[in-house]
Amino acid sequence: MNGVVIALEGSRAAKASVEPLLRLTRADMERVNRLILSKAGSEVELIPEVARHLIDSGGKRLRPMLTLAAAQMCGYEGEHHVLLATAVEFMHTATLLHDDVVDESDLRRGKPAARKVWGNQASVLVGDFLLGQAFRMMVDTGSLQALGVLSTAATVIAEGEVLQLASARNPDTTEDEYLAIIRAKTAALFAAAAEVGPIVAGAAKPTVGAFRSYGANLGLAFQLVDDALDYGGSSQSLGKNVGDDFREGKVTLPVVLAYRRGTDEDRKFWRDALSGRNNGDDGLAHAKKLLARHGAIADTAQRARHYAVIARDALAPLKGGPHKDALIEVLEFCVSRAN
Amino acid sequence: MNGVVIALEGSRAAKASVEPLLRLTRADMERVNRLILSKAGSEVELIPEVARHLIDSGGKRLRPMLTLAAAQMCGYEGEHHVLLATAVEFMHTATLLHDDVVDESDLRRGKPAARKVWGNQASVLVGDFLLGQAFRMMVDTGSLQALGVLSTAATVIAEGEVLQLASARNPDTTEDEYLAIIRAKTAALFAAAAEVGPIVAGAAKPTVGAFRSYGANLGLAFQLVDDALDYGGSSQSLGKNVGDDFREGKVTLPVVLAYRRGTDEDRKFWRDALSGRNNGDDGLAHAKKLLARHGAIADTAQRARHYAVIARDALAPLKGGPHKDALIEVLEFCVSRAN
Repeated sequence: MNGVVIALEGSRAAKASVEPLLRLTRADMERVNRLILSKAGSEVELIPEVARHLIDSGGKRLRPMLTLAAAQMCGYEGEHHVLLATAVEFMHTATLLHDDVVDESDLRRGKPAARKVWGNQASVLVGDFLLGQAFRMMVDTGSLQALGVLSTAATVIAEGEVLQLASARNPDTTEDEYLAIIRAKTAALFAAAAEVGPIVAGAAKPTVGAFRSYGANLGLAFQLVDDALDYGGSSQSLGKNVGDDFREGKVTLPVVLAYRRGTDEDRKFWRDALSGRNNGDDGLAHAKKLLARHGAIADTAQRARHYAVIARDALAPLKGGPHKDALIEVLEFCVSRAN
Repeated sequence: MNGVVIALEGSRAAKASVEPLLRLTRADMERVNRLILSKAGSEVELIPEVARHLIDSGGKRLRPMLTLAAAQMCGYEGEHHVLLATAVEFMHTATLLHDDVVDESDLRRGKPAARKVWGNQASVLVGDFLLGQAFRMMVDTGSLQALGVLSTAATVIAEGEVLQLASARNPDTTEDEYLAIIRAKTAALFAAAAEVGPIVAGAAKPTVGAFRSYGANLGLAFQLVDDALDYGGSSQSLGKNVGDDFREGKVTLPVVLAYRRGTDEDRKFWRDALSGRNNGDDGLAHAKKLLARHGAIADTAQRARHYAVIARDALAPLKGGPHKDALIEVLEFCVSRAN
């Protein structure tokens, strides 16, 4: 069994990159990028200004690439995957804009958050605009099935965000509760992004299911690694400040594990820090020490590998080729970031 | 010509009410209300709590009634108008939740605004949830045409809100600019609500266009009257505080007219008040005096009548009957509120 998962842990994983996926989707992504610019346009000047602030700040655009690669892998030759990929990216951008208001963030992708430049108002409203545009593009594809998948994702994402809000600053959150949150707020859009590719290509049900499962589990791995990196890495490589989650009192898996495995004294520290006391630089340094002592970062990364393996197995029955290889390499890249 | 419009100005108008519309749509509205409660439900406790705070606070639900009445008038006998009417009401509720964050409102429909009870975060996210649910219900109808109309409305509403934000506190706003704002932020949803009724009923294109025009112009009249009432009426009957717009520095038509028609000294007062100086009770009293002196409220009401007449003419070619009568009486009721 070990031999099967070695690529997600060994030296090959360390060299894994998103490069092959980028290469395969390059031509279509150029069309997505043009469509993004055109659909973020409005005669109301503030809208393209705010939208482009975020759009130009260089997110990886992993989600639309998933849609494109999945559609290509299913032999799709039409135009609608470009519309759906753009819609997915707009849904993601809208979520980021609303998230910044909810989290009261100062930075996003290494730039001042839109709400710091234009105020909460513009972030809320431009997010709403992008969401409206996303649905219009879905309607343009004429696929009620894709519309169903993406509108359900929109609902689930909002539920996940509210769930996260309700368990904010609560260190008694269990790993299961944490998983329910990231399954909704992150994995749902990855799953939908991967699923609408085969849907638009008219693929058979088991294929659609395979991509959905791949996307959902990649999303979980991605979020787990992101949460681990918030206590490591540098501000620059993350495009956000290390320790943002800590300062905002976010209960992520590293904290859940360190809290449960710690002493009473440790737990008192976490409760204080999560409720805004001792959550400055000294607090962060102490938090990192506790996380290391209890192997909380390493085990968060291990959980990420668990989901990456499930994602890979989801694709196993599908015919091999460069697309399948590229999608598997994305899993390897994702978990290798945490090492 | 005068004889034709007399009902919108004379004694009959004074007795006009929404009662006939309520009666015709009562059975369907009961189904809408049940669907609202069910679709506002979520295992995430905070969601139904916040949603019901607003839903139970007794808005008139005029928009979903328009959808139902329009579908009935076109002979529709299916179930999908109930889904669309509920989707329309959810879009409206989501807008209100986001609006409160944008406006930093304290009251909504006479109750503390959701953001005052649960914070901006919950208002943003529960709004997003309701919008997602609205799109799911539209998808359930299988009508791509209705989806197109309502997703376009979602985009236009957000554009209108941003436009309003951009011209906030700016007394140089022209009447045309003001109209462009309310056309987008209010009339677009009224138009869509009325239009999807005949669409779901499979009505002919001229009929669909007639309802769209009726809805759009009713929406304009409705908003104009609302803006006039913000400087008259009582807090209780409005469900918001008289003078809210004034205190928030909102440039509505009464202000646009009084500013343009005023002296230099008047204009200095308005500029000060809109930028937050002298906008307390004394300022409001002075504002009302200036509005009265320049006939700004009466003329705002007159503009509302102008659009109400257009709305009535839009329906003129359609076959008469109780539904048509009820929809025309709504116009009369709407403009009579301003007197």
